[in-house]
Amino acid sequence: MSITAAQGFRAAGATAGLKASGSSDVALVVNDGPDHHVAAVFTANRVEAAPVTWSRQVVSDGRADAVFLNSGGANACTGPRGFQDAHRSAELVADTLGCSATDVVVCSTGLIGEFLPMDRIEAGVALTAAALEVEGGSAAARAIMTTDSVPKEATSTRGGWSVGGMAKGAGMLAPGLATMLCVITTDAVVDAAVLDGALRAATTVTFDRVDSDGCMSTNDTVVLMASGASGVPVSSADLTAAVTDVCAALARQLVADAEGASHDIAVEVRSAATEPDAVEVARSVTRSNLFKAAIFGRDPNWGRVLAAVGTTGAAFDPSALDVAINGVRVCRAATIGDDRHLVDLAPREVRVVIELHAGDATATVWTNDLTHDYVHENSAYSS
Amino acid sequence: MSITAAQGFRAAGATAGLKASGSSDVALVVNDGPDHHVAAVFTANRVEAAPVTWSRQVVSDGRADAVFLNSGGANACTGPRGFQDAHRSAELVADTLGCSATDVVVCSTGLIGEFLPMDRIEAGVALTAAALEVEGGSAAARAIMTTDSVPKEATSTRGGWSVGGMAKGAGMLAPGLATMLCVITTDAVVDAAVLDGALRAATTVTFDRVDSDGCMSTNDTVVLMASGASGVPVSSADLTAAVTDVCAALARQLVADAEGASHDIAVEVRSAATEPDAVEVARSVTRSNLFKAAIFGRDPNWGRVLAAVGTTGAAFDPSALDVAINGVRVCRAATIGDDRHLVDLAPREVRVVIELHAGDATATVWTNDLTHDYVHENSAYSS
Repeated sequence: MSITAAQGFRAAGATAGLKASGSSDVALVVNDGPDHHVAAVFTANRVEAAPVTWSRQVVSDGRADAVFLNSGGANACTGPRGFQDAHRSAELVADTLGCSATDVVVCSTGLIGEFLPMDRIEAGVALTAAALEVEGGSAAARAIMTTDSVPKEATSTRGGWSVGGMAKGAGMLAPGLATMLCVITTDAVVDAAVLDGALRAATTVTFDRVDSDGCMSTNDTVVLMASGASGVPVSSADLTAAVTDVCAALARQLVADAEGASHDIAVEVRSAATEPDAVEVARSVTRSNLFKAAIFGRDPNWGRVLAAVGTTGAAFDPSALDVAINGVRVCRAATIGDDRHLVDLAPREVRVVIELHAGDATATVWTNDLTHDYVHENSAYSS
Repeated sequence: MSITAAQGFRAAGATAGLKASGSSDVALVVNDGPDHHVAAVFTANRVEAAPVTWSRQVVSDGRADAVFLNSGGANACTGPRGFQDAHRSAELVADTLGCSATDVVVCSTGLIGEFLPMDRIEAGVALTAAALEVEGGSAAARAIMTTDSVPKEATSTRGGWSVGGMAKGAGMLAPGLATMLCVITTDAVVDAAVLDGALRAATTVTFDRVDSDGCMSTNDTVVLMASGASGVPVSSADLTAAVTDVCAALARQLVADAEGASHDIAVEVRSAATEPDAVEVARSVTRSNLFKAAIFGRDPNWGRVLAAVGTTGAAFDPSALDVAINGVRVCRAATIGDDRHLVDLAPREVRVVIELHAGDATATVWTNDLTHDYVHENSAYSS
């Protein structure tokens, strides 16, 4: 169900021939209202794809009627022609639905540096528009997959209203958004400003804290639409909580499906002076190739954790650091702690807890291990 | 010859039993004067090893008589006992040579989080002191190897004076020093302040621009000693040029020997507004796992170059970027340029040139590709 779990939305996925595999590759999500509020966050990468440039304009007035997505081509680094293609995609959707092109968000994912085959995009718009249905969420979620091994969907149902979401992403996850496309829907009655605040609060503590390989994409987009179809007015706090739940569930699925990974690693920093300090320290560990390779080798190499922590500017006394890996405090006061051989790194999920002894703040950043398969997939696949 | 190419120095390497392999693992370099000037740069990592803490104190007065180095153990994250062991190593050397312990620099490299076996260190001091000779440079260079496949040595001989250097390092190379130990000697007549300036100028444009995997070690140390034994007074500019030559040659050897690498990659940023901008952009590319994996796969994936460039704060117009890989301008004005199939990525050396069109500054940062062997070596070796 995912995005069609919320009332007032229809969705579809179809095959337009963009992927060599013949899998479905275009998706359409339509908000039938009565409200047509939208909020979105986009990649912070200054080299942004044409659909991102287009969609920033679309959402700037807080209204959108539909989101059209394609896999099989990123339409990034395609210059003025790429922007014209993104604009044209929105026009095709608008003509079909009878709305304005400036109310159609467009998202693309796939190989950078190639033009979209617009004849196939045109066919894809017609196919998805014809297939729209109130149970179409899962078909849409499948159509946006690239190297994903499974579709990602999540819902949160509250008292008479719901939030639903779908996402694609299986690598190039990084802060300032994982490389990903994500569409979230709600039938709550809220205004556009509340929607925007809820989305930013949710992504800051979920997608922004997933860091598979430190690389930030040109196409990252998270769109949240509200239809008001439930008729239930919802507070900002309740909406934020529900959107955060859905984003957290989707983010966890992204980590679990990261290309070639054999471990999902939660790096939790405790007793930091501030939350930004905690995030900075956690991020430095999740970006250490040496640490990530050690986890792949099931080596509880706490020295590499400390070496990464030491590169940060966070407040801490370097002689007061503690590190626990899967419950074993292998490092106490920055020196040798409990026997490292007690650490069991066989399970897929790994938890590293770092105590800075500098305050009360905490943060957790997720990443994956660095594996042979990661290198293989990312050396063989042009994206 | 390397460090003993300069007059006034003796060196030795010996086997103290620190390495399971039975290879030589302790080295001693002695400055017989008449001058005993020293300058050094150390890791910027706040989690610094005990020998770094010790040696910072030793060089603070600009005088050192000897450098004692061991492989087979980093003496990092070893707390107060580790510092006592570093101090004790210096005392053992000082007693043997008849100098002050506070004039003995100590360097260690190897596994983090284990105490040094001080009985073997004591034996190693005696063995190296007994083996000191004016042609001992190469034996010392071999003794400091860890995962290095070859020793690294370089010399620069000028009119009547010389600079010689040795280094170890084959992974964990990062700015703010590659993870490495390096000893440089000169017989030029210079004062300690000039020595310090020359060393900092040289490392900034050499070791600081080598970035194998973005990880910064706890033990990085570069020591430069001047004996004055040539009797030739040398200007600051001439000394800086010669030290830079030696550092550049050693840095290039470190890149060529990086663990598991199959390509050496020079990322050159041109037409930047400032040199720091050029370095920031180059560094963002050398830290992109996706880009590095693509080069391993011989895929001239310029989209990943642009995606990395776009994450920086450097001055440029995102629609005006050009990228050439091995001479083929695959990206012009941030979109599709010449045929990517023309790029030959078979040779080990790869040159990526990025034009920012924002000014006249330039910088080159070296890195390696991300390979199966990198993952293998760093998942199997505790360090």
